[in-house]
Amino acid sequence: MTARKLMQNISVDCVILGFDSEQLNVILVDRTLILPNTSEVVFSDLTLTGYHIYEDEDLDSAAARIVKDLTGLENLPLKQFYSFGALDRLHHPNDQLWLEHCGDVFSDRVVTIGYYSLLPSTNVNFIQKGRNAAWYPVTSAKGLAYDHDFVVEKAIEHLRYKFWHEPIGFELLPVKFTLSQMQKLYEAILGTQFDKRNFRKKVSQMDYVVPLKEKQIGVAHKPAQLFMFSCDVYEKTRKERFDFFV
Amino acid sequence: MTARKLMQNISVDCVILGFDSEQLNVILVDRTLILPNTSEVVFSDLTLTGYHIYEDEDLDSAAARIVKDLTGLENLPLKQFYSFGALDRLHHPNDQLWLEHCGDVFSDRVVTIGYYSLLPSTNVNFIQKGRNAAWYPVTSAKGLAYDHDFVVEKAIEHLRYKFWHEPIGFELLPVKFTLSQMQKLYEAILGTQFDKRNFRKKVSQMDYVVPLKEKQIGVAHKPAQLFMFSCDVYEKTRKERFDFFV
Repeated sequence: MTARKLMQNISVDCVILGFDSEQLNVILVDRTLILPNTSEVVFSDLTLTGYHIYEDEDLDSAAARIVKDLTGLENLPLKQFYSFGALDRLHHPNDQLWLEHCGDVFSDRVVTIGYYSLLPSTNVNFIQKGRNAAWYPVTSAKGLAYDHDFVVEKAIEHLRYKFWHEPIGFELLPVKFTLSQMQKLYEAILGTQFDKRNFRKKVSQMDYVVPLKEKQIGVAHKPAQLFMFSCDVYEKTRKERFDFFV
Repeated sequence: MTARKLMQNISVDCVILGFDSEQLNVILVDRTLILPNTSEVVFSDLTLTGYHIYEDEDLDSAAARIVKDLTGLENLPLKQFYSFGALDRLHHPNDQLWLEHCGDVFSDRVVTIGYYSLLPSTNVNFIQKGRNAAWYPVTSAKGLAYDHDFVVEKAIEHLRYKFWHEPIGFELLPVKFTLSQMQKLYEAILGTQFDKRNFRKKVSQMDYVVPLKEKQIGVAHKPAQLFMFSCDVYEKTRKERFDFFV
């Protein structure tokens, strides 16, 4: 059996996003450089779930394999959104030290293909124990390795565009959700604040957000009504209303 | 001066589209393999405007440089839409012969970053003389080199998505256009046929498609009324109407 060969200058980076009813979170991986034969930590920072691709795998397979290796998560819906090839994307001192430590395995000119994934809710149990990966609020994901601050920014920008045009937000909500959760998600993605009454008025015009005869259970506050997203109603009403790019 | 180094396994391919009032066209480049020291043509086919990137240029710069080198066109609006990395994307016999002919310059595992560009109208004069590039109807762009059939398909799919949500179609029309031209463009991109009366009824509801007090000049048929796209009106009415993903 011959060893699989990594492509030195092509990688995949995944922005895995999850909403925990309060804020939008992203999975990040610990990158700590420890001096060989000592326990001295040279630096410690965070990266997206990413790695180089093998010569014998396509981009989608590489993304799935990398996410599984780093988090244990399988069968995530992973979608490409942008590729990054700035000349200085690996030029931060930490990145240079890291590359030096890795020897000749990687080039210092790497083009990375960005993927994103939306998970229905964040749950630390999703990530297998013993992994160096964990959830972090997107708002605090700054000073990441390589150009990963920019990659996260671009993913959110992409998502924001899709958010205005498709009901993809519901992929991030639990199957049954409250309007307060929905408003918080919209605010997190769109980077804006909505007036509660106006927001609810708009939602009441969305036939595909269906009120249920159920309320929250086991909450400390007054339990709120639950809602569901109906894909059927959305598809039906969308076709009736679609008028080019109204 | 040291020679610039090409990256063996990373390229950029551009889908440059233009509408000539009748159909949607794409710029393709002739790829003819002639046996060295003879005039025997081994094969002849067509590729997108694409090439490998240099180690010292970023992706956007590479796209602009490649388009300029192959067509003479400068300052095109080039936008990334997708990256392609299937294992067999260079496995057609012509591609293998071509790679063999090129020697060790390129790898046979290449990831390509797809860009697209919309030109206001197709004009063969846009392409400098002596270039091997020319306009071809998108509908006839089949059997292209590498996976370029698929790249074109993906570009159209991307465009179709944007078309439903943004008035980008007007980038492909002349500044002053007829409704018949507009309908043909919509039909070409969306791959559908519209009833003339229904189409005009819909357009009449678009405040940003402004009728002019001008008609076509120098046409053999009865001159049609001209229209313009108003970006100001679009932006204004869009904000008023925007209601999430209505």
